[in-house]
Amino acid sequence: MTTKTNQGNYFEDFRIGQQLVHATPRTVTEGDVALYTALYGPRFVVQSSAVAAMDIGFEDAPVDDLLVFHVAFGKTVPDVSLNAVANLGYADGRFGVPVYAGDTIRTVSEVIGLKENSNGKTGVVYVRSRAVNQRDEMVVDYVRWVMVNKKDHSKPAPETVVPDLPAVVAPESLRLPVGLNLEGYDFAGAGSSFCWEDYAVGEKIDHVDGMTIEEAEHMMATRLYQNTAKVHFNQFEQAKGRFGKRLIYGGHVISLARALSFNGLENAFKVVAINAGSHCNPTFAGDTIHAWTEVLGTYEIHERHDLGALRLRTVATKDKPCADFPYKDADGKYDPQVVLDFDYTVLMPRRAV
Amino acid sequence: MTTKTNQGNYFEDFRIGQQLVHATPRTVTEGDVALYTALYGPRFVVQSSAVAAMDIGFEDAPVDDLLVFHVAFGKTVPDVSLNAVANLGYADGRFGVPVYAGDTIRTVSEVIGLKENSNGKTGVVYVRSRAVNQRDEMVVDYVRWVMVNKKDHSKPAPETVVPDLPAVVAPESLRLPVGLNLEGYDFAGAGSSFCWEDYAVGEKIDHVDGMTIEEAEHMMATRLYQNTAKVHFNQFEQAKGRFGKRLIYGGHVISLARALSFNGLENAFKVVAINAGSHCNPTFAGDTIHAWTEVLGTYEIHERHDLGALRLRTVATKDKPCADFPYKDADGKYDPQVVLDFDYTVLMPRRAV
Amino acid sequence: MTTKTNQGNYFEDFRIGQQLVHATPRTVTEGDVALYTALYGPRFVVQSSAVAAMDIGFEDAPVDDLLVFHVAFGKTVPDVSLNAVANLGYADGRFGVPVYAGDTIRTVSEVIGLKENSNGKTGVVYVRSRAVNQRDEMVVDYVRWVMVNKKDHSKPAPETVVPDLPAVVAPESLRLPVGLNLEGYDFAGAGSSFCWEDYAVGEKIDHVDGMTIEEAEHMMATRLYQNTAKVHFNQFEQAKGRFGKRLIYGGHVISLARALSFNGLENAFKVVAINAGSHCNPTFAGDTIHAWTEVLGTYEIHERHDLGALRLRTVATKDKPCADFPYKDADGKYDPQVVLDFDYTVLMPRRAV
Repeated sequence: MTTKTNQGNYFEDFRIGQQLVHATPRTVTEGDVALYTALYGPRFVVQSSAVAAMDIGFEDAPVDDLLVFHVAFGKTVPDVSLNAVANLGYADGRFGVPVYAGDTIRTVSEVIGLKENSNGKTGVVYVRSRAVNQRDEMVVDYVRWVMVNKKDHSKPAPETVVPDLPAVVAPESLRLPVGLNLEGYDFAGAGSSFCWEDYAVGEKIDHVDGMTIEEAEHMMATRLYQNTAKVHFNQFEQAKGRFGKRLIYGGHVISLARALSFNGLENAFKVVAINAGSHCNPTFAGDTIHAWTEVLGTYEIHERHDLGALRLRTVATKDKPCADFPYKDADGKYDPQVVLDFDYTVLMPRRAV
Repeated sequence: MTTKTNQGNYFEDFRIGQQLVHATPRTVTEGDVALYTALYGPRFVVQSSAVAAMDIGFEDAPVDDLLVFHVAFGKTVPDVSLNAVANLGYADGRFGVPVYAGDTIRTVSEVIGLKENSNGKTGVVYVRSRAVNQRDEMVVDYVRWVMVNKKDHSKPAPETVVPDLPAVVAPESLRLPVGLNLEGYDFAGAGSSFCWEDYAVGEKIDHVDGMTIEEAEHMMATRLYQNTAKVHFNQFEQAKGRFGKRLIYGGHVISLARALSFNGLENAFKVVAINAGSHCNPTFAGDTIHAWTEVLGTYEIHERHDLGALRLRTVATKDKPCADFPYKDADGKYDPQVVLDFDYTVLMPRRAV
Repeated sequence: MTTKTNQGNYFEDFRIGQQLVHATPRTVTEGDVALYTALYGPRFVVQSSAVAAMDIGFEDAPVDDLLVFHVAFGKTVPDVSLNAVANLGYADGRFGVPVYAGDTIRTVSEVIGLKENSNGKTGVVYVRSRAVNQRDEMVVDYVRWVMVNKKDHSKPAPETVVPDLPAVVAPESLRLPVGLNLEGYDFAGAGSSFCWEDYAVGEKIDHVDGMTIEEAEHMMATRLYQNTAKVHFNQFEQAKGRFGKRLIYGGHVISLARALSFNGLENAFKVVAINAGSHCNPTFAGDTIHAWTEVLGTYEIHERHDLGALRLRTVATKDKPCADFPYKDADGKYDPQVVLDFDYTVLMPRRAV
């Protein structure tokens, strides 16, 4: 046997400032977009219709922001999280130039934080991952932190460095697609006349619908993103483990929740930031995902009268409708059926004066 | 909670002459076509090979007519049938200009009939739906009627209007793609030498093969069409209902039956009309679909010596082979394993003289 | 009932020298490529990134060689193996010009061998199948032999002809894509720095990961290839048979094994030959596939200093990790959990001097 196979990095393999050039660059195509539609059923008009997209200044229908995120994320798995125990959080995520079918995405990460746990067996690794297109333009840039196993427990702990991360991406630092002009926005095609002005901080929306997940679906999605985390694919191995079954990639639930959120957020036509995110409980095939959203903030965008931004919390549950907005108990502990707590910022057209 | 979510229309919300501009326009791509192939396995040469298609005058391989139908149909669901009890029938369906990858489809419906049921709790709504491409050219136009719940039973019944619908789309009103010339038709590539002249009224063909449906397949298909009918996706809710499981979109069965019908109808290269259709019994994951076809009519096409039309009835069954052509009993009641009775018109090349 | 349906050929229908022009030509698209990625999760950089592909002289990201093989193979099923009892072997397989999205593939086969079995009820048919693109350039050419039922046992046995087939495709007869120049090869993007020089004959690599197969996945794959073999799709019929369940297309396992082999063979960027192959045991949904590879040969390529070839044996198992390289017992009988023994030749970059 040779050691040509990738064993992944262990906690002691990471160094502050280390650059990880991830395999495999990936040309995103109309085929990926069709699969994304088949897997989640999104209906946001700008991603669905090239005509609607070009009417507001895109070159073509842009690839769904979360599909871009999943492809960018997938690349980081073999180097960052193959030996991870848990995906702990996201912060400071910003989407850059739109991705169109035909663009090639690659991802580079930098280790920006390390903190060994007191048990000496695991540690937390913080990385900033930056995905760019074939012209080296940033398409998405975000921080995530994961708990990773140590292989050699005798290795000394590194100096603790915990990065200072913003609780929310500042509205003034959001990147808008160049040439965007919402005057031509197709409200009828979008399926709702609700504008940025119609949403108020504290407002909660139950997205009503539920979507059951099948094994074939989450595995096809996760392979599409070239995400190699073993727990999603290997039932032979998982059968012996804690849950007895395959775990679903957390990003699959994010995309399902975003697709469900169309019912009530029809005009949230673009995700521009990921402020925070937590996969609160594991999800398995057979679970039915529901979702609700709370408006956390409404932001004007500098010098723009055609659009504004909304900061949203979308919460997804398994096997639990969301009419009463399940979230946390009095002690701040997540309801056991809450599987996702996702804090992000979207663009929405403003009402034409 | 806000009421921003779409609750769908109830029977009392419809008015004769009402125009429903449906969300969401949809650019159909090569990705959708590949998924359609993966989901049903069609092998008709004109849709499979761009070379074969261009050899008879298409600009490219046309998108399968039924994929166009499903996309057009999916758009109507949130406005027409979200609160429907049953999909009762189709009539007067005509396909227009071919759809190619890259075209954007949108659908508008008009309410053309209303009839409240005697129980005062439901009513039948007739709509004519017209889907067009980005140049406003008709791609498919059809009538369907559905039974829809009333929300407020105290609302008075509307005046009854039942549209006068043809039993069959007249051959002289069929739309042929401009520039079609079957002289270059690839019989060898198509897999059969049987021509329009070889089919006779009354002839029955058992399509032999069977295809089992999985949950992941019908849900991916139905999401691909952006069809939002709840009964297809939510096992948590369906578990409490009459069947205890998710219902399969009737159109999924139409496409399976059409793909199975290749074996015996290899040269039926284009669907040009939907005369009638009935989803006779529900279909569930695990069911194995078989199909048989009866030739109902053979039509010459005005001034065309290269092609003719066949009116066909294709019947699909679940868990029942079709060697003895299962259909209705002596009282005219469908065999409980018949799930589809589909009456449509196809084009077929004529024998070169 | 008419006899318009294809009943497939029986052993007595084949003649030495017979040409079989297979239906259906198939335009391969970016949609097919995306599905292939979703179904198997391959990560070889040249097929994943158009940029990486063009950097070494391809016109675009080439379509995965095995996807080309499956499409070419699928066409032969209705004429060659619809009444087959077993797929016995492959030999002398060579890949030709690269296939790009948009190319149209068709396949023609010639019967090159016939041998009736002593029971008089079955016989072995050898066919050479040649798939070409729309410019009649060869894309893949291979021999396979299958055991086929006789329909009429009274028919006399044909003269026995067994073709003389090479055990391995000679390195000097391999076809390299025109214009290939590995100087620009993206090792970082490919995920490994191991070159052709780093692999030695006899070396074994455990590819570590396991992948569980779902019914929806193998059926979608097999339909995508327009492969019509009944045993893969019809649970109603299979329930009554020997295994009680649907059999998985052997090619599905080849593609899974190749995708798993990325972990240890990252730079094996192109399959150029299929020397031999055996589907040792049946595979079913629910099985978890693992794989290991032995290097059988290392070949220099005439006048090329930028690349070499490796002859590999990749063995796939079901529900059995491959750390100890399961294969055959002392009597030469396959381990019952070995499902594939695949002997093929790949190209790999050489180390820059």
